[in-house]
Amino acid sequence: MYQRQLRIALAQYNFAVGDIDANRDRVIDAIGRARSEGVSVIAFPELALTGYPPEDLLFKPRFIDANLRALDAIVGSTTEITAVIGFVDRQADIYNAAAVVSDGNLSGIYHKQFLPNYGVFDEERYFQSGTENTVFKLNDVTIGVSICEDIWYPGGPAREQTLRGDADVLINISSSPFHDGKGLRRDQMIATRAADHGVILAFCNLVGGQDELVFDGGSLVVDQTGSVIAQANRFDEQLLIADLDIDSVFRHRLHDPRRRKEKSTAGPAISPIVLQTRQPKANPETTTDNMASPSPPAYRSEDRLRDIYRALVVGTRDYVRKNGFGKILVGLSGGIDSALVAAIAYDALGQDSVGLVTMPSRFSSDDTQSDAQQMAENLGIDLLTLPIQGIFDTYLEELSDEFAGKPFDTAEENIQARIRGNLLMALCNKFGWLVLTTGNKSEMSMGYATLYGDMAGGYAVIKDIYKTLVYDLSEYRNSFADGPVIPQSIIERPPTAELREDQFDTDSLPPYDVLDPILQAYVEEDRSLKEIVELGYDEKLVARVIRTVDLNEYKRRQSPPGVKITPRAFGRDRRLPITNRCREY
Amino acid sequence: MYQRQLRIALAQYNFAVGDIDANRDRVIDAIGRARSEGVSVIAFPELALTGYPPEDLLFKPRFIDANLRALDAIVGSTTEITAVIGFVDRQADIYNAAAVVSDGNLSGIYHKQFLPNYGVFDEERYFQSGTENTVFKLNDVTIGVSICEDIWYPGGPAREQTLRGDADVLINISSSPFHDGKGLRRDQMIATRAADHGVILAFCNLVGGQDELVFDGGSLVVDQTGSVIAQANRFDEQLLIADLDIDSVFRHRLHDPRRRKEKSTAGPAISPIVLQTRQPKANPETTTDNMASPSPPAYRSEDRLRDIYRALVVGTRDYVRKNGFGKILVGLSGGIDSALVAAIAYDALGQDSVGLVTMPSRFSSDDTQSDAQQMAENLGIDLLTLPIQGIFDTYLEELSDEFAGKPFDTAEENIQARIRGNLLMALCNKFGWLVLTTGNKSEMSMGYATLYGDMAGGYAVIKDIYKTLVYDLSEYRNSFADGPVIPQSIIERPPTAELREDQFDTDSLPPYDVLDPILQAYVEEDRSLKEIVELGYDEKLVARVIRTVDLNEYKRRQSPPGVKITPRAFGRDRRLPITNRCREY
Repeated sequence: MYQRQLRIALAQYNFAVGDIDANRDRVIDAIGRARSEGVSVIAFPELALTGYPPEDLLFKPRFIDANLRALDAIVGSTTEITAVIGFVDRQADIYNAAAVVSDGNLSGIYHKQFLPNYGVFDEERYFQSGTENTVFKLNDVTIGVSICEDIWYPGGPAREQTLRGDADVLINISSSPFHDGKGLRRDQMIATRAADHGVILAFCNLVGGQDELVFDGGSLVVDQTGSVIAQANRFDEQLLIADLDIDSVFRHRLHDPRRRKEKSTAGPAISPIVLQTRQPKANPETTTDNMASPSPPAYRSEDRLRDIYRALVVGTRDYVRKNGFGKILVGLSGGIDSALVAAIAYDALGQDSVGLVTMPSRFSSDDTQSDAQQMAENLGIDLLTLPIQGIFDTYLEELSDEFAGKPFDTAEENIQARIRGNLLMALCNKFGWLVLTTGNKSEMSMGYATLYGDMAGGYAVIKDIYKTLVYDLSEYRNSFADGPVIPQSIIERPPTAELREDQFDTDSLPPYDVLDPILQAYVEEDRSLKEIVELGYDEKLVARVIRTVDLNEYKRRQSPPGVKITPRAFGRDRRLPITNRCREY
Repeated sequence: MYQRQLRIALAQYNFAVGDIDANRDRVIDAIGRARSEGVSVIAFPELALTGYPPEDLLFKPRFIDANLRALDAIVGSTTEITAVIGFVDRQADIYNAAAVVSDGNLSGIYHKQFLPNYGVFDEERYFQSGTENTVFKLNDVTIGVSICEDIWYPGGPAREQTLRGDADVLINISSSPFHDGKGLRRDQMIATRAADHGVILAFCNLVGGQDELVFDGGSLVVDQTGSVIAQANRFDEQLLIADLDIDSVFRHRLHDPRRRKEKSTAGPAISPIVLQTRQPKANPETTTDNMASPSPPAYRSEDRLRDIYRALVVGTRDYVRKNGFGKILVGLSGGIDSALVAAIAYDALGQDSVGLVTMPSRFSSDDTQSDAQQMAENLGIDLLTLPIQGIFDTYLEELSDEFAGKPFDTAEENIQARIRGNLLMALCNKFGWLVLTTGNKSEMSMGYATLYGDMAGGYAVIKDIYKTLVYDLSEYRNSFADGPVIPQSIIERPPTAELREDQFDTDSLPPYDVLDPILQAYVEEDRSLKEIVELGYDEKLVARVIRTVDLNEYKRRQSPPGVKITPRAFGRDRRLPITNRCREY
């Protein structure tokens, strides 16, 4: 009996926003590589040609036209292969689209049907939505194509394409960003969707950082039972190749009474678009690599920390590199936040691309200073020391008339933080570097940070990491093969901003193991005061935390971008008014 | 013959976001006032109970519930009157809704059908859209209700409600924000819509500032020919009352063959919801005020400047007051931007609420310093002088090793700007004030400003005003009855940042009368390099401007909010990636 096989490739590449020519060249290159591996069908992520998300670049007609020209150039490169490429289609309106290009012909175009407009997404702002559940016939294999959000709807095109279009294989091209826990949820959904429709499902995801988003890859091929055929790495570029046993789909369906019943009421059959192609025979000699375990691995705690740490590294690396910075600068205070950020910068960019500065005042202890020194030594990076006391004194002198008789308060604290911000920025302005800021999500939530001071900089690496998670990630980083880099004394010292005598974070904030769960319940889950108190927290404390979070929206509005890690990061994910008299806690 | 009359009131009030209890009380108060004036129907703006736009407050169930409780409380206050109130309806999903409350009963609810999701709007993020073109019967008058965006669609509910529902009067409740030129466009559209459907149209708009938006009021009642019956002031609160001659609508329709033809194919009639109410007779003794001219006034250039200036004043006043600041601080450089901002602050908040500081360096000229002094004297405000040279010298000393052998460049320029930012913020932190920043749109576009320096502050009053318009507005302000406040020498001096010897803006930027039209074409109209060159500008210059605008997205992302004036302000209106390799100019 003739065995129907299909060799498929998923190009999990880091396509940059706006870089249409380079993206085109990488698509053409991947097609060539896939062809040489005997691949019949290669898929690229959603909006691969423009990068994702292009945001208001989509309002520039010439940008859309450039992406169409890039697609034209790619068509000619598809000799003896079929490619599914994410691009912006321009008809009377524009669409988030997938081109199906086969053997030098643009054979068909699929338009995304479900446009996400929640969380960080604004697709209703730009696109018309599609309505056609097209399927394609490549020799004896029927293929349905859909785009990202489409596959998250149980009654969406996947259902129509398998039930009415008899698709054997579904290809979903995505640009699905990371947040903590999303990989698992997505893998589960993909497996369920394949099993629900009795179809092989290939999910091709973008990888790389774009402003606040990190796309985590993890492209996946599952069979009609939901078992994993192949999975790409998370956070890395990869050309994932897999051989699909198409006959297994039909064998499976013979046993599927659910499908049979549903099909009888599913509506008219969808006629496939036939792909005209001289397909090379799949070369049985070529072994496909990247074969993963037969079912999704169980997620463990280390996986969670590993994913988050990778996201921070990739997000930082891509922000710095894609924006053309050669070197970054981190102010080391001797505390854990700046230590973790320095370690991430080191892992993201390498020793030679990281500059470290410490800026002690008279409130800085010998312990924190020697820890900063030790941290720098552990990374093998020189530590520049710029004491700020002299500058601070001239400010106090300048303001002595106005401040006369007033107690030392946050005004004086902030002056110090802003002197440090000024020094870091001066070095960066002089040498063309980028400052990484070191504030964590607990601080950003509570406004426990100085605008234009420690918040001054181009990228806020850990702005979406709660302080308790900062500790976990520091311990995790210290478990790497190159040995601990963050001194244990930094991890053990009670947190302090060192902006006045004997200051500790707990003077102003509840302990972080109490604060962080309250923040998570309020910021990410929109829980009410009453609901949070019912979790076992003191009512006065919860009320104070909620009020403080609300009052500091203005600070967050001026903070630099940073990696989104949680399901609800500050920024586009959480759009609250600054002027806000809401007291409905 | 019995004459059908309806006295209507439009409550053009400043409802604050989140301030549900206060908004409820103001609604009840307005209803009482209207009743005492013999009003039969009173309308309030879109989402009056929550304020507009509530943004992600809508994700808090308790916020929605509080707005429902407020509506409940209002229902009881509607004895012998009908009220149309914007609120968030909660069914299985939430809706942007209008409650029609009559004589103590909640008689019906209309759900907004067209949810704006462009420009500054994100309504698809929150709401389900409505489908019902309800009309209401109040004694012998049929009324259709719609919400904001709905009336902008020629085939929307206005058409259904008049054609199939035989509405005599349409009430549109809106929260429609200002931009330059919008008032005229809106008035024209309202007049056209009324004439198209042969119906009296009452448009009730919000007034007041909310973060970057200013709602300009201008509530309007037009008759079935498009003539103005009454119009409220722009930018002020007002309870606009008008007497409607309902019979005139029917008389008009007897002459309208277009309506007759359309009606025959319009679909089934809409049955009205009958409002059970003991309506007081309209009191013919009460004269209605606020009667405007019989047709919309022609817009003149002074009107344009007046509107923009009012928007700046209202936006600043409401940001400061609604956020609870008593006093604001402006750094006066002796240049025109800070002079205009000081004048706006003075007009918005009054003499006693404005602090002025000048912070000269060795690059500051005697002329600019004496102009700053004169400006302060003109406003009757003391000018605090804080020279920065001593502080600047200590920075240079601190950085002398790192900067050795390097020429004086933007690093040193920015240090000075950041010292000023630090001093302004120190004063504000000490005394609880707010800094107003003074950058204009030309500077914000080109990044000709120092992050954490002159960009440091809470509200950026003129961030959406091009430099050429800064001059026009300054001349306009100097024409006020209280006499010129901005010294003529400030208006006449060539612009300079005074951050180095003999510096002029034109060292770094093209002349503003060349730059501003290029910026407008690129930033607001998304025109291409080629298209802008065709307007008559030098290609190299245009290319440099475009590139500079793109490269400075990161600065704008960290800028404070400020009043939206143009059709496309930086901020929510223009969402571009920072990481952006697009070179498709």
